[in-house]
Amino acid sequence: MSDRLAIYAEGLFANAHGKTGHGIIRYGQRDVVAVVDSTTAGRAANEVVPFTARAIPIVATVQEAVDLGATRLVIGVAPTGGRLPAAWKAALLEGLHAGLDVEAGLHDELAADPDLVAAAKEHGRELRDLRGVPDDLTTPSGEGMRLPVTVVHTVGSDCAIGKMSVGLELVRAASEAGRAAVFVPTGQTGVGIAGWGMAVDHVVADYIAGAAERLVIEGAERGDLLFVEGQGSLLHPAYSGVTLGLLHGARPHVLVLAHLANTTHIDDWDVAIPPLDELCELYERTAAPLRPARVAAVALNTQHIADDDEARAAIAAAEQESGRPCDDPVRFGPERLWAAVERELAAVGALG
Amino acid sequence: MSDRLAIYAEGLFANAHGKTGHGIIRYGQRDVVAVVDSTTAGRAANEVVPFTARAIPIVATVQEAVDLGATRLVIGVAPTGGRLPAAWKAALLEGLHAGLDVEAGLHDELAADPDLVAAAKEHGRELRDLRGVPDDLTTPSGEGMRLPVTVVHTVGSDCAIGKMSVGLELVRAASEAGRAAVFVPTGQTGVGIAGWGMAVDHVVADYIAGAAERLVIEGAERGDLLFVEGQGSLLHPAYSGVTLGLLHGARPHVLVLAHLANTTHIDDWDVAIPPLDELCELYERTAAPLRPARVAAVALNTQHIADDDEARAAIAAAEQESGRPCDDPVRFGPERLWAAVERELAAVGALG
Repeated sequence: MSDRLAIYAEGLFANAHGKTGHGIIRYGQRDVVAVVDSTTAGRAANEVVPFTARAIPIVATVQEAVDLGATRLVIGVAPTGGRLPAAWKAALLEGLHAGLDVEAGLHDELAADPDLVAAAKEHGRELRDLRGVPDDLTTPSGEGMRLPVTVVHTVGSDCAIGKMSVGLELVRAASEAGRAAVFVPTGQTGVGIAGWGMAVDHVVADYIAGAAERLVIEGAERGDLLFVEGQGSLLHPAYSGVTLGLLHGARPHVLVLAHLANTTHIDDWDVAIPPLDELCELYERTAAPLRPARVAAVALNTQHIADDDEARAAIAAAEQESGRPCDDPVRFGPERLWAAVERELAAVGALG
Repeated sequence: MSDRLAIYAEGLFANAHGKTGHGIIRYGQRDVVAVVDSTTAGRAANEVVPFTARAIPIVATVQEAVDLGATRLVIGVAPTGGRLPAAWKAALLEGLHAGLDVEAGLHDELAADPDLVAAAKEHGRELRDLRGVPDDLTTPSGEGMRLPVTVVHTVGSDCAIGKMSVGLELVRAASEAGRAAVFVPTGQTGVGIAGWGMAVDHVVADYIAGAAERLVIEGAERGDLLFVEGQGSLLHPAYSGVTLGLLHGARPHVLVLAHLANTTHIDDWDVAIPPLDELCELYERTAAPLRPARVAAVALNTQHIADDDEARAAIAAAEQESGRPCDDPVRFGPERLWAAVERELAAVGALG
């Protein structure tokens, strides 16, 4: 019998930090029976998070999720810094005692916590760390760039604005167009959705690019058109190192820039996002020494714009500002962005 | 009684990877009684490595170092990937059995090796991991950028070409000019020399910038003009993530670019180093969104040019190419570069 998931997102399911749970619900193939968040309990997931199609019940406690048939508790929040708060640990212990397996993608590994390990052992349950990293990881060898695969990489102006979703939508469009397209997960949410991959932000800093190369090598066994999920932003005061290591380790042929409509600064930081054409150029200049790659399109996240016509106007403005084709692939479908990526792949002779 | 060091550099003391040992000998305040390297044994350190002033005997075995009075064995090599080879481990065990403390700055931590831990315990010796990282490290808070300190950051065109040495030379010049100048070590060699700091390439990738910020905060307790050691290069296929995370976490006011004379490509990689003016501009563009900083000077490493006049010609050419004042601070002294840094600090109002 396969897992039935309860997504733990206490206090944060409506927040952008709840993206892990949102992604598992929206794009995952896994059976989700409940979301645990006392602050939105009583409603359905799709009433709280726009574009989350499935009407999964939100409950207030872990026990209620057990009553709905959950077999596995998954932390569905990506907190800043990735630490495990004490309140969450108590919920995980409650889940283990109630007979649930437990899964998380934090930097604090479940398997390193003696209390969780003891409770899992006592009840014969599994602890799964999505950010687990292979023991033999090291710096890149150069093998990845010599493989006969084409790499598209989604980058962004900030964190948690939809780089993963853009990648998943483009994979869908490319697959429908008959391509052997593969989503390459680089963060805990993507790993939770796809069931493989690596959270590159969790590796030893010296091995970021090595981790990205390894994912390209593994992806090449699954198809010849890889969409490598981006992380962070070249502008981000905390995460830019991961962004650049991933960009250089993946050596993309084409970039797609994700941006959240109507934002002018990095979230929580006094760092201005430059005009989109400048930002595209910064990514291109930074990628170029290793492998030249153009930003072929801009994916605009319009989730905070209620009206469709206003969303379309924002897309037209971003197209003007960036000088690239632009659309919101989650709201209006990925076809337009995929067409732009396909044209760019043809232009650089990497169409396969 | 303080430590008397034996530097273990088997087979690699003459190589650029021996930089940890070279740095400890050249810039450290610690007592070094021997280098262990059977391939150069019988000579003195300063005969094998140019500009290493101290005539320390090179011996073939750990036992000979013990006979010369060593009390601590330090791995003096920074191998690619930072793993501990089996042959080195055997030497460390020999050292522990002979009564030496052991110190290393590898990614493979000494304290994680059961054989080394058992031998250290048996003989009452210390295992010291220079790449050890504080348990409570996380993403940056923004505190570092609000402190009343000025930050100079040495960046580079490649790894292992002298960014640390340039920083140490500039600290010397600034101190002689009466400034409260502090060298902020960000790699295992720097930590070995200065006795504090953090190897930022060893932290969890998400925490690179957080580690850099913490070092700025710690540095601010030691003085108000910080010279933060750079790591890797924005162009490096393996290490660029660490480079950018460090650059953004340190938020420098001024940059100094280190370059190895007569190199056109990243060592061991098919990646061309752009003209120096372009490379300076790439660093400036990448730093700018967080805090604008100009490359005030270029430090040219001329160690592979035997003749002083030829070295001076190479410096003049690099000055022309970069459009910045240039000198080799290790060969000809740091005064010229320090003057350029001081002018730039005055220009941006950060002279203190």
